Amino acid sequence: MAKQEFLLTGTGGQGLILAAIMLAEAGIYAGQNVVQSQSYGPEARGGASRAEVIIGNEAIRYPKVEKPTLVLTLSQEAYKKYGLNLTEDAILVVDSSQVNEVKPRSKNLYSLPITKTARTRLGSEQSANVVALGVVASFSGQIPMEDVLQAVRQRAPKGTAEQNVKALELGWQLGLKAGAKQDDRHSQNEGDEQCRI
Amino acid sequence: MAKQEFLLTGTGGQGLILAAIMLAEAGIYAGQNVVQSQSYGPEARGGASRAEVIIGNEAIRYPKVEKPTLVLTLSQEAYKKYGLNLTEDAILVVDSSQVNEVKPRSKNLYSLPITKTARTRLGSEQSANVVALGVVASFSGQIPMEDVLQAVRQRAPKGTAEQNVKALELGWQLGLKAGAKQDDRHSQNEGDEQCRI
Repeated sequence: MAKQEFLLTGTGGQGLILAAIMLAEAGIYAGQNVVQSQSYGPEARGGASRAEVIIGNEAIRYPKVEKPTLVLTLSQEAYKKYGLNLTEDAILVVDSSQVNEVKPRSKNLYSLPITKTARTRLGSEQSANVVALGVVASFSGQIPMEDVLQAVRQRAPKGTAEQNVKALELGWQLGLKAGAKQDDRHSQNEGDEQCRI
Repeated sequence: MAKQEFLLTGTGGQGLILAAIMLAEAGIYAGQNVVQSQSYGPEARGGASRAEVIIGNEAIRYPKVEKPTLVLTLSQEAYKKYGLNLTEDAILVVDSSQVNEVKPRSKNLYSLPITKTARTRLGSEQSANVVALGVVASFSGQIPMEDVLQAVRQRAPKGTAEQNVKALELGWQLGLKAGAKQDDRHSQNEGDEQCRI
């Protein structure tokens, strides 16, 4: 597959590092080369979280994300830091309940009810990381669902496999629907209801 | 603190990525800059696991380990791949029950009963990753125990915090004892008993 670079950002405690490890391992199961990393600077002590995944079928020369294919932001602060100044082609996914102020983009902007889906469909925002993983993996378009499923089952904390599989499926559908509605994007952004699954 | 580079290697399922994340987060609590990463190539599909952590008080320019301060190997295969060709100054820690064939080094070689301690003192080899973390962190000499404890409590899977705190303490003592006996290293390597805590 062509190289893809993912940036998963939010606050500590949202489980984004685990989601990034699951995405990385799904890439392995799909037969790709992968580098997964987190860089922590002073901002990590303020609660910011940022995890990177690079996946591709060629050797990965530079192990840090340079030109993201997709940026996920699960907090307003993360959006301000990582969601602006992207290339037009970069896909930006923001959480519709956590990121309220979003600068319009001509394309590739998706405001999706990730934490809301976790809360209302799974009973806990703790699964939002795996809902997000499902969104990201479906947007990738290059990692088979069965490989993501395998990674989720492998990495889910004990006793949470089924909950996380359900979260993955909900996120995957959310991503697919949003992608299919791309032309209708602005109306999606007006409210969660139209993106709800 | 001066920059330190750690390489934690073994097989998939030993929990070394989690141990590396705990080490990284301990570094954050200690006020340092940290990069933590895993690179997966074709060997990952054969079950090999390799996680990196770089910790220091200056900005980390290149995010991959280039000249390790400490290499941990929890399998013979990992030892063959990462335990040879180190500089004299690099500390090499091998698991005494998993790595049976070790080429002598003039210094900085430690064969320690990491998985054995997990099995005999904690009732399960599953805790070997956190015993290993304790060894590595104590060898570092620059990360306070309380910061490692905080990271372990934060990251331990639900219901396993106490088990993992105990594992950390056992590993920390194992590392301290081995470091103190450095001049007496060769006798330690003859059997586990002398390193047992």
